[in-house]
Amino acid sequence: MSTAFHTTRRVEFGETDMAGIVHFSNFFRYMEAAETAFLRARGLSVSLQWQGESVGFPRVSVACDYLKPAKFEDLLDIFVTLEKIGRKSLTFAFDFKRGDEVLAQGRITSVFCRKLGDQGMESLEIPDELRRILEVG
Amino acid sequence: MSTAFHTTRRVEFGETDMAGIVHFSNFFRYMEAAETAFLRARGLSVSLQWQGESVGFPRVSVACDYLKPAKFEDLLDIFVTLEKIGRKSLTFAFDFKRGDEVLAQGRITSVFCRKLGDQGMESLEIPDELRRILEVG
Amino acid sequence: MSTAFHTTRRVEFGETDMAGIVHFSNFFRYMEAAETAFLRARGLSVSLQWQGESVGFPRVSVACDYLKPAKFEDLLDIFVTLEKIGRKSLTFAFDFKRGDEVLAQGRITSVFCRKLGDQGMESLEIPDELRRILEVG
Amino acid sequence: MSTAFHTTRRVEFGETDMAGIVHFSNFFRYMEAAETAFLRARGLSVSLQWQGESVGFPRVSVACDYLKPAKFEDLLDIFVTLEKIGRKSLTFAFDFKRGDEVLAQGRITSVFCRKLGDQGMESLEIPDELRRILEVG
Repeated sequence: MSTAFHTTRRVEFGETDMAGIVHFSNFFRYMEAAETAFLRARGLSVSLQWQGESVGFPRVSVACDYLKPAKFEDLLDIFVTLEKIGRKSLTFAFDFKRGDEVLAQGRITSVFCRKLGDQGMESLEIPDELRRILEVG
Repeated sequence: MSTAFHTTRRVEFGETDMAGIVHFSNFFRYMEAAETAFLRARGLSVSLQWQGESVGFPRVSVACDYLKPAKFEDLLDIFVTLEKIGRKSLTFAFDFKRGDEVLAQGRITSVFCRKLGDQGMESLEIPDELRRILEVG
Repeated sequence: MSTAFHTTRRVEFGETDMAGIVHFSNFFRYMEAAETAFLRARGLSVSLQWQGESVGFPRVSVACDYLKPAKFEDLLDIFVTLEKIGRKSLTFAFDFKRGDEVLAQGRITSVFCRKLGDQGMESLEIPDELRRILEVG
Repeated sequence: MSTAFHTTRRVEFGETDMAGIVHFSNFFRYMEAAETAFLRARGLSVSLQWQGESVGFPRVSVACDYLKPAKFEDLLDIFVTLEKIGRKSLTFAFDFKRGDEVLAQGRITSVFCRKLGDQGMESLEIPDELRRILEVG
């Protein structure tokens, strides 16, 4: 977990708001896409089959601090760190930079769950094999 | 089908873009919400159970013409007309007004489908009973 | 600030994700719309003219905890509390309920700013008159 | 204009809806981002300075036909063709493919405008120099 996973993203016109900057809610979409890229690089996904069951990572707590605005066509560097692997939960930290400037810092905590038939969810301990794949990151 | 169904909606900050107006893609979200309100007024939904099966209306063709921009906090009047009920499809027309000004006009054509187990869909003839409920509109 | 401002909102189809629940990022859009309604009830806005200047409330810190998922067509009760009025900043807290169930709790901290010509922003002390209008809430 | 401009895009989780597929409105965001990439490849943008004036391309008419659903993590190929350059307007056509399958086909017509001080817009003839850059595409 020492080195952050890195991905980039270019700001789209439809992600801006009338203040001329990226709407703050879109940083959470950026975080989720970066988390997906992190998982994909390990052969995983935010929505996957694991030993015959549909499992996923519904979010339980998220946060973001905004230091400087991002603008249309900015090329953002996003650094993803798997900050904590709990018994049932994962916490990812995200740093958004444009060149040397830090624009925002966010965090997403999710719980490992299996889907029940009626769209319900049940939390589960993260299996050892999954834990090992994540810890390599 | 002679009189349009009417609903209203206030433009939100997050729906604007850096041009200072509602992002054009959001009119399709407005249309869908107005269609949902139309269906709800008839005890229906865009995603419902019908005689024990999950049915829905995936979109096959949509369009919108933009005459004047909508802005933050505008109160939009949306008029929904069920323009055509085909054998398997529905076409809704939408008029967006702000006071006396027409801002946009859109159209959504959907196909009646039942969901298959593997996230597939199969188109179906619209049942007579459903057709009667829709035609009252 | 003792009694929360109340508004409601019905979940739209386009706000759900493939997990069958409201996408977590949309709760921030819900918060912003509820904050706008709070401000509108006081004759204010998140983007307004104040004594001849364009002022606004860019966000500096936001967070949300998710307790239970919200689903399509749920009617959400949203309670808005102006938790803190600082020298230059405002913190709003939001409670999302469906009937008696608490679904989520969020928080948005914004800084009062005036817009400079080149899309820059400069933070300002919240004027006494604006402070008085907000404190009545 | 004989060969289409090509770009790719991976479907994000937050772009899906409870039907398990990409929400139809997001195809318009995909089109806009692909149009932006087309323009960027020519040194242009959907929002740019042209000889000292702020100019842009507000949309006047858009449409999309949906043939097959796109799903989470699909890698979409998007082909952009500048179908028509009118006196004041541009029409782009978009083809969405996943491998050999055509998923959707869309179209966006925009009008070349300069921004007036009060957030108004005035349509303009497309300057010859801009026309030449576009026609090379």
